Amino acid sequence: MQTQDLARAVIGGDRRALARAITLVESGREDHRRAAGDLLEACAQSGRQALRIGLSGTPGVGKSSFIEAFGTLLTGQGLRVAVLAVDPSSARSGGSILGDKTRMERLSRDPRAFIRPSPSQAELGGVARRTREAVALCEAAGFDVVLIETVGVGQSETLVAGMSDIFVLLIAPAGGDELQGVKRGIMEMADLILVNKADGDLKDTAIRTCADYAGALRLLRKRPQDPEGFPKALTVSATEGQGLDRVWDEITALSDWRRAQGHFAAHRAEQARDWFEAEVRHGLLARLTADPAIRAEMDRLGAAVAEGRATPARAASDILAALRR
Amino acid sequence: MQTQDLARAVIGGDRRALARAITLVESGREDHRRAAGDLLEACAQSGRQALRIGLSGTPGVGKSSFIEAFGTLLTGQGLRVAVLAVDPSSARSGGSILGDKTRMERLSRDPRAFIRPSPSQAELGGVARRTREAVALCEAAGFDVVLIETVGVGQSETLVAGMSDIFVLLIAPAGGDELQGVKRGIMEMADLILVNKADGDLKDTAIRTCADYAGALRLLRKRPQDPEGFPKALTVSATEGQGLDRVWDEITALSDWRRAQGHFAAHRAEQARDWFEAEVRHGLLARLTADPAIRAEMDRLGAAVAEGRATPARAASDILAALRR
Repeated sequence: MQTQDLARAVIGGDRRALARAITLVESGREDHRRAAGDLLEACAQSGRQALRIGLSGTPGVGKSSFIEAFGTLLTGQGLRVAVLAVDPSSARSGGSILGDKTRMERLSRDPRAFIRPSPSQAELGGVARRTREAVALCEAAGFDVVLIETVGVGQSETLVAGMSDIFVLLIAPAGGDELQGVKRGIMEMADLILVNKADGDLKDTAIRTCADYAGALRLLRKRPQDPEGFPKALTVSATEGQGLDRVWDEITALSDWRRAQGHFAAHRAEQARDWFEAEVRHGLLARLTADPAIRAEMDRLGAAVAEGRATPARAASDILAALRR
Repeated sequence: MQTQDLARAVIGGDRRALARAITLVESGREDHRRAAGDLLEACAQSGRQALRIGLSGTPGVGKSSFIEAFGTLLTGQGLRVAVLAVDPSSARSGGSILGDKTRMERLSRDPRAFIRPSPSQAELGGVARRTREAVALCEAAGFDVVLIETVGVGQSETLVAGMSDIFVLLIAPAGGDELQGVKRGIMEMADLILVNKADGDLKDTAIRTCADYAGALRLLRKRPQDPEGFPKALTVSATEGQGLDRVWDEITALSDWRRAQGHFAAHRAEQARDWFEAEVRHGLLARLTADPAIRAEMDRLGAAVAEGRATPARAASDILAALRR
């Protein structure tokens, strides 16, 4: 299929075309990257926007159950929901997200939902790049909500927050000590903190944990992009479906307010600019490995430096001169 | 002074020339960078090597007192000691290391010692680069030991470990909980963990803390570059001068073993190669800001992307094409 035909099929809502388009943007091949550029440009013509919700939670917190229940709630209201994953460990574990997909059994059979596992690439920067492009494709395909989920490992939360309109942190009920386990930097990125498993024996603990987080959130400096009362901590039960309506109401209220105040568009503009700059840096550094002659020269000079026959600064300026030619 | 004269003066052991040479490598000016490259190349001809000891410790742990006492012990044995600092906060705080220098009153007046505050640059990568070059200059100037100290903040420990032969972690005596405060990644970089303040009321606590760390170190996977018994935890008292001889004995034993086994040279070769690659990446990215025409084009395309008139991928490939010309 030609790129323009593929773009038309994506915009027309063809799910198989969307899956193929995402596979294309995930490819690192030079000709695929060029086609992906054309595809993204053609898809941008749709002018459609989804609400991008980032969702982070460590393994065991009930992330899959939450997405299954929350996604089904949204599709039940007639909304179309795409779920994308950013899993920095997927290259190693060989597809923990496939497991997620089978655990989201109901949502994966829902005609209004689209679930896509994490691209299996070793480098987090590469995963981030592909996911940003996959989000753009899902928007062109007419999805109303794009959920971008990640495990709370290393820098993946920062990356997901950097491509989301709303960032949600899913937490397990736990003693007061656990509060310190969530890094301050992550807390500061969150718009909503959801304490899951507020059911059965854990209900009281969940309520206490939620109060602890609410207290901690009040201590953070107020951000201009927040109306009164945000960021907010809530309890939910994914398995019993408790509190999910409230979560959607809060997300809607927050995004409506941000749209009205101009924060929503400003935030997206800033993210787009960051994305552009990251692409430029990535493309520039890719030259070091793309050209076999440069690669060979890097190896030769690297060996000279290692053996003390050249200083790092001199060897580096030799390579930079070679790149200029 | 011409670069070659400056190099000769540095190699000749002229302290003022060394200070000037470090100021030169700290400069970001294009012509200074070129002169610094020549200077480093000329200084590399000396073929001298110092023992590079990285030292990390959070504020309040007694780092300055330790350096003062340990440095004085070494100069007392006839060794020449240079102290360099990597302080990621110095740009903001406006020179906490100057304070350090006045707190190391005895060492700073010692003719066999040379103390240099952290370069005040906002960007940690820039500080790392300059410090690596300052280490090379101190080696050319004939120092036997170069101590590179840093506060345990963010990535600065990793950077310092990446330019040291031996990495020492200075710790305060504390309860068992404190053990968890030291990140596993930092523990894995340490060759020696020193529990300071093993004097007065804190002595027993220091001994217990040391035993805790010794136990934790035994749980880490054995590294090929360690002889039996390393990494090691010891108690010291900087103010009473207790345990400092032992620290120097352990450092000497460890570096002798590594030299004999070839690990020492292999580690340096690997660090030099990393340094070279970092220089290349830095130089490549510097092109984005060096050329006013490219800067203007980045701004123009960044605005287009922010306003949705261009996709990030397309705008990035436009910039990359402009850089190729």
